Amino acid sequence: MTNPLFAPVRGFRFGGVHAGIKAQGLDLGAIVGDVIYGAAGVFTQNLVCAAPVTLAKGAVSAGQLRATLVNSGNANAATGEVGLADAKSTLEAFAAAYGDELIAADVAPCSTGVIGVRLPVETMNAAMPTLAKDLNAEGAKRFAEAILTTDRGIKAARRNFVHEGQERSVLAIAKGAGMIHPNMATTLAFVVSDSPCQTVEHSFQQALREATDRTFNRITVDGDTSTNDTILAMSSAGGAAPTAFFAALRDVLGEVAEMIVADGEGAEHVAEVIVSGAQSETDALTVARTVATSNLVKTAMFGKDPNWGRIAGAAGRAGVAFDPNALTVAVNDVLLFADGVSRVTLAVEEAAAKVMALPKYEIRVSIGEGDASASYLTCDLGHGYVSVNADYRS
Amino acid sequence: MTNPLFAPVRGFRFGGVHAGIKAQGLDLGAIVGDVIYGAAGVFTQNLVCAAPVTLAKGAVSAGQLRATLVNSGNANAATGEVGLADAKSTLEAFAAAYGDELIAADVAPCSTGVIGVRLPVETMNAAMPTLAKDLNAEGAKRFAEAILTTDRGIKAARRNFVHEGQERSVLAIAKGAGMIHPNMATTLAFVVSDSPCQTVEHSFQQALREATDRTFNRITVDGDTSTNDTILAMSSAGGAAPTAFFAALRDVLGEVAEMIVADGEGAEHVAEVIVSGAQSETDALTVARTVATSNLVKTAMFGKDPNWGRIAGAAGRAGVAFDPNALTVAVNDVLLFADGVSRVTLAVEEAAAKVMALPKYEIRVSIGEGDASASYLTCDLGHGYVSVNADYRS
Repeated sequence: MTNPLFAPVRGFRFGGVHAGIKAQGLDLGAIVGDVIYGAAGVFTQNLVCAAPVTLAKGAVSAGQLRATLVNSGNANAATGEVGLADAKSTLEAFAAAYGDELIAADVAPCSTGVIGVRLPVETMNAAMPTLAKDLNAEGAKRFAEAILTTDRGIKAARRNFVHEGQERSVLAIAKGAGMIHPNMATTLAFVVSDSPCQTVEHSFQQALREATDRTFNRITVDGDTSTNDTILAMSSAGGAAPTAFFAALRDVLGEVAEMIVADGEGAEHVAEVIVSGAQSETDALTVARTVATSNLVKTAMFGKDPNWGRIAGAAGRAGVAFDPNALTVAVNDVLLFADGVSRVTLAVEEAAAKVMALPKYEIRVSIGEGDASASYLTCDLGHGYVSVNADYRS
Repeated sequence: MTNPLFAPVRGFRFGGVHAGIKAQGLDLGAIVGDVIYGAAGVFTQNLVCAAPVTLAKGAVSAGQLRATLVNSGNANAATGEVGLADAKSTLEAFAAAYGDELIAADVAPCSTGVIGVRLPVETMNAAMPTLAKDLNAEGAKRFAEAILTTDRGIKAARRNFVHEGQERSVLAIAKGAGMIHPNMATTLAFVVSDSPCQTVEHSFQQALREATDRTFNRITVDGDTSTNDTILAMSSAGGAAPTAFFAALRDVLGEVAEMIVADGEGAEHVAEVIVSGAQSETDALTVARTVATSNLVKTAMFGKDPNWGRIAGAAGRAGVAFDPNALTVAVNDVLLFADGVSRVTLAVEEAAAKVMALPKYEIRVSIGEGDASASYLTCDLGHGYVSVNADYRS
């Protein structure tokens, strides 16, 4: 079974063009389904959300999503009522150019880029016929390029499996790199599949929410939430979803989420903070999130410093009760702290420094209270982060 | 009314000596009261707390606090049972050297410095007779020096007022500079007063807790909580406290808390995040804290970038409901965002950049929901923070 990332997914057309929103490169993309049997969406929880998010939410909740229109270079955020009208105008222009009975209300818009600036609607609308013509089954890579802002590269993941005698695919295409230009680094992710996507017990929306909670909601770059974050999913197949579909959905979202953490000029290391020995998964996740979002832990990662004191300190303030004497802290297999005291000798320090020089490693914390565990992905906080975030004018 | 910071406070002796815990400089200090009429303490909420915190809590809750023994250079944290025994040994040596019926259980120990390393007990105990001899009414400045680690200078504040015909004082002495060497930068604060300190309705402990909530608990440097954070307060006067005492207590703690935010090689700007228009003070404080602890806001401060988008984004994810169209964002008097749209013109940008070049300014956020407000102090996140936290080995 071959796995070419951007091979067709039955029932979908993809495209990407240069509309002139950015000075160069593809900046306007779309995905259209011929017939959509299921759609789902997860959106930023930020009260201050952008116009496209408001419209995309509406399209998903109306149950008639058939396409998404995505631009990079301008987030259409904090643009007030005029921003809503601008977004609607681009949806109408796109639907008209596409034809095939597509209407604006079927299309979820997504925008990413500078905020507080109006969309260049005329420029965009002039490009809609070209975009409509560009759409084809082989166009996923062009779409993946068109949605990027400061990302170091395309982010996509795919899983194939056989269901009722046919090969089915789940393809996720994403963008985002919180370390750099955060206001241009909205997280966007799009999932398309030609597998049945829900069962009576398990709706597509539930499945997407759960997969998001276990993937995108367990990564941290800087703890901030964009005004535009959106995950959209569409399936072109009816019928009851196989278990393999739900597993594939989670896998592809997990893979692109990790790509987002690893991206960004500032990030040199990704750590999976694994907390075990908790009474519940919620407790484990709370401790993991607190360690993963600690600036002191993240700067220690940058300095390759096996600083268990900072890790223990973050765990201790997470709000989850545990006996500090039962706490253990390790990086990969190198134990740093146990039984209430440091285990760091010169040899341990050297071994830990080697682990922390790796592009990816585990920070393992056990709190000795039970059997539950959870993990959270994080990256280091270095000079790159400060430079791009202080110098970049969004 | 003169206000020499380190003038005597009736009933207290202060001292500071070089015991040899650090290579040079004063590193062991003490405050002893002749007769203590009231004592109170607020301690780190971190589960992973140091041995001295455990003992100091005991002394305060037993109601017999008469003195504090403070060392810098070693935090006696993550040292297990042996750390407790070490701390007790130093208390016993100090009490024996001091005489005057002082016993170890009357003394609250505080330690700040490297963690995971045993206290040099013999060296410290050998210095106790010298420390006991050094204690005198004029010694507050030496005490203030002895408790410093990486602080740029002494931190103290004083208020004097007249009560029942006598001048009374409230003197706070503190240390801490979270930006640099956080594990050596435990926040410690000591308050001594010769004013009555409580009333039937308002205990000293309540007053200290409330003053701490409005001062130390409203500052952020990096969001981490030390294993050793301690605030201790003692009064040498009985009777009913005047209102002036409670005001003075809050004032001195507020003043030293602001000194802590402003300290640190990395910090160039302090901002008071003032959130108004909330339905409750709790809501206002939640929004203020979220803005104040946002890495994106803090790096924008470093870059002197009037980035209202990051401020609005942080406010929007705070978990407090408000209408984004009613949101306003300003730095001092310069309005950046209102009515859902940017107010930034070239002239506004220049004016805002001037404000953000100041060592201290206000970030004003109004959410248009009510009349409650609250504020939170923060500082910028720059290269200095990364350098010292990545390079320093704690």
